[in-house]
Amino acid sequence: EDAKEAIKDMSDPYHNDPKRHKILKPASVKPFNAEPPSSILVDNFITPNDLFYVRNHLPVPEIDPETYELEIEFEGKTKTVILSLDDIKKFPKHTVTMSIMCAGNRRTEMTKIKAVKGLGWGNAAIGNAQWTGAKLRDVLTAAGYDVDSDEYKHIHFEGLDTDPTSKPYGASIPSWKGVDKRGEVILAYEMNGVPIPRDHGYPIRAIVPGVVGARNVKWLGRIFLSSEESDSHWQQNDYKGFSPSTDWDTVDFTKSPAIQELPVISSICKPIANQTVTVVDGHITVQGYAWSGGGMKIVRVDVTADGGDTWHVATFDGQDSNDPPQHWAWTLWTAKIPIPDGTENVELWAKAVDSNYNTQPESFKNIWNLRGVLSNAYHRVPINLQREK
Amino acid sequence: EDAKEAIKDMSDPYHNDPKRHKILKPASVKPFNAEPPSSILVDNFITPNDLFYVRNHLPVPEIDPETYELEIEFEGKTKTVILSLDDIKKFPKHTVTMSIMCAGNRRTEMTKIKAVKGLGWGNAAIGNAQWTGAKLRDVLTAAGYDVDSDEYKHIHFEGLDTDPTSKPYGASIPSWKGVDKRGEVILAYEMNGVPIPRDHGYPIRAIVPGVVGARNVKWLGRIFLSSEESDSHWQQNDYKGFSPSTDWDTVDFTKSPAIQELPVISSICKPIANQTVTVVDGHITVQGYAWSGGGMKIVRVDVTADGGDTWHVATFDGQDSNDPPQHWAWTLWTAKIPIPDGTENVELWAKAVDSNYNTQPESFKNIWNLRGVLSNAYHRVPINLQREK
Ligand SMILES: [Mo]
Ligand SMILES: [Mo]
Repeated sequence: EDAKEAIKDMSDPYHNDPKRHKILKPASVKPFNAEPPSSILVDNFITPNDLFYVRNHLPVPEIDPETYELEIEFEGKTKTVILSLDDIKKFPKHTVTMSIMCAGNRRTEMTKIKAVKGLGWGNAAIGNAQWTGAKLRDVLTAAGYDVDSDEYKHIHFEGLDTDPTSKPYGASIPSWKGVDKRGEVILAYEMNGVPIPRDHGYPIRAIVPGVVGARNVKWLGRIFLSSEESDSHWQQNDYKGFSPSTDWDTVDFTKSPAIQELPVISSICKPIANQTVTVVDGHITVQGYAWSGGGMKIVRVDVTADGGDTWHVATFDGQDSNDPPQHWAWTLWTAKIPIPDGTENVELWAKAVDSNYNTQPESFKNIWNLRGVLSNAYHRVPINLQREK
Repeated sequence: EDAKEAIKDMSDPYHNDPKRHKILKPASVKPFNAEPPSSILVDNFITPNDLFYVRNHLPVPEIDPETYELEIEFEGKTKTVILSLDDIKKFPKHTVTMSIMCAGNRRTEMTKIKAVKGLGWGNAAIGNAQWTGAKLRDVLTAAGYDVDSDEYKHIHFEGLDTDPTSKPYGASIPSWKGVDKRGEVILAYEMNGVPIPRDHGYPIRAIVPGVVGARNVKWLGRIFLSSEESDSHWQQNDYKGFSPSTDWDTVDFTKSPAIQELPVISSICKPIANQTVTVVDGHITVQGYAWSGGGMKIVRVDVTADGGDTWHVATFDGQDSNDPPQHWAWTLWTAKIPIPDGTENVELWAKAVDSNYNTQPESFKNIWNLRGVLSNAYHRVPINLQREK
């Protein structure tokens, strides 16, 4: 019986996946996709590695750092540049503090309007870390590319994770972003000061600040500069937004652009839905995160407990000092909300405003989309109230 | 009597203002602020100069192109660079197709929720033009500035228009934008192929693509590179967003950032509110514009006639081919909306989505602000329906 189990394990492409922290709640086990309880997010401006949400599309590859190779190729040219891990570490070291978010974060709220296809993410498919590595701009320059030339329009990233037909995970970003002086795209080998954990891309992950998680390709094996976007499933037929009236019979994936920079979002992490909260001195405390893609900075978070009749401006507990358009990290916030005597329950709403003064849409009804991505409507959290005895 | 009139005119600081097209509806006459009927906007991808909205803060200065001078100064340095109009025209000529919008565009819709302070703009305080001039990046390089140095954080623009105390109109932009390779900030001397009309900044206007009209300083007289933002009224105590619950008793202008890049917006131009529209083959036609600041591109416009139960994707009639983050022009769109038999009136709503998948807030209630700026909630247009006989 034990031997049989072992054999079964060995034939499972996921048998080599790493151990995970027990607090991570899986949305799927194979591939592994999991998030922490959202209350943990607001406890730390920098999310600890083992509590960081994991979003894998395929089994985690086992990579020997000694033999690891990164290939760099240019469309229409025969030259292939091959870099070892040590080669990458020889470039000037650059650190970015940056939040990564899954396009499907908060999908379970959108699903309540109407079913969507996708993993059941809560509001913790986001985390904030310090990523250290070589600037892609420097690496491509060393590979002989003139980063000011705009010769190629897209930079493809391929992972070393593969499907049963040996096809790797892949995605691309616009090349302007990949080489921009202020883009800060890096080939990262450290996450929060230690080698990137296996679940997060060991030994090298493409880190693309301000851009959806799906383009931050883990276990990076190949970079390809091209006139075209990646033709991968995840670039072409997934991770795109559509009108609320587009369904699976009418959808045409060629009609929408691949998600890159993400829109402004916020979420309430404490309290959670249906929690009983104690009113202290006529107030309750609400905490959450807010973030915007594209290097925008959160400039204000408003919270209401009366359907928008009064909005209370949150104070910021954690925020990076970088100015837009290079503000890559989330903002943690706290709001003190006055509660009228006798009120037994309220619904809390939060909305963020970014440095372009973009703000969140109010309701999921009008942003619903069949893949359940870009789920950035107001977070609405019903709670019950009690008084101190 | 005639002589008296002439004397009175001469003492009026506005007596030298140019003649304007009769179709422009003034929101104020001195200073002159006016917009065309919104239906004119969707007739032309490029707005004709004489139909372009005018937003003046002060009298229009009369400037002799022969003696015109632009001063360029650097904080902490004694050198002043002085350029004539001919000097500016000697730089490589660069054209950008770009929309300019007033921060107060669509203010009259927000005012319906609760009064605000500001000019009563409808939805036509926006226009799209081709602007030609010298790149600020080139001009500053020639003035001895290392545009890659990030030595200064802000670039101030001062107009030659002055108030009764001789104080000029002024504003500043972050210097990264002013010198960025992809920022395309220009010192423009042509608007749609002719010298810029007096109302729009003759002979030189700072053109800052993707950024609110107020920073596109007309009648440019001085550029100043500084460690600080402009201390002008319009930078510090105006053109900022606040929470809906902030009023004139509680407002602190130091707490909000100056508006620069603008959020995504759209508006319905045809039909107009309360118009009677003929249903043809069970459909009506709706036309409008959409735009987003920061070089973002409009990727979708949705229109509904049933409160969001069904959304219809508009087709684009006019859109620039530039990719984000250098997509500066608006998008003109048309939607065919099916109308059920017997329906006598509907309310049309439009919303746009930009290339960062930011979208518009639903209602003015939750974005109301005391200055009535950033008025980008869904445009809601009630109309009456009639059938062909
Ligand atoms: Mo994702
Ligand atoms: Mo304006």
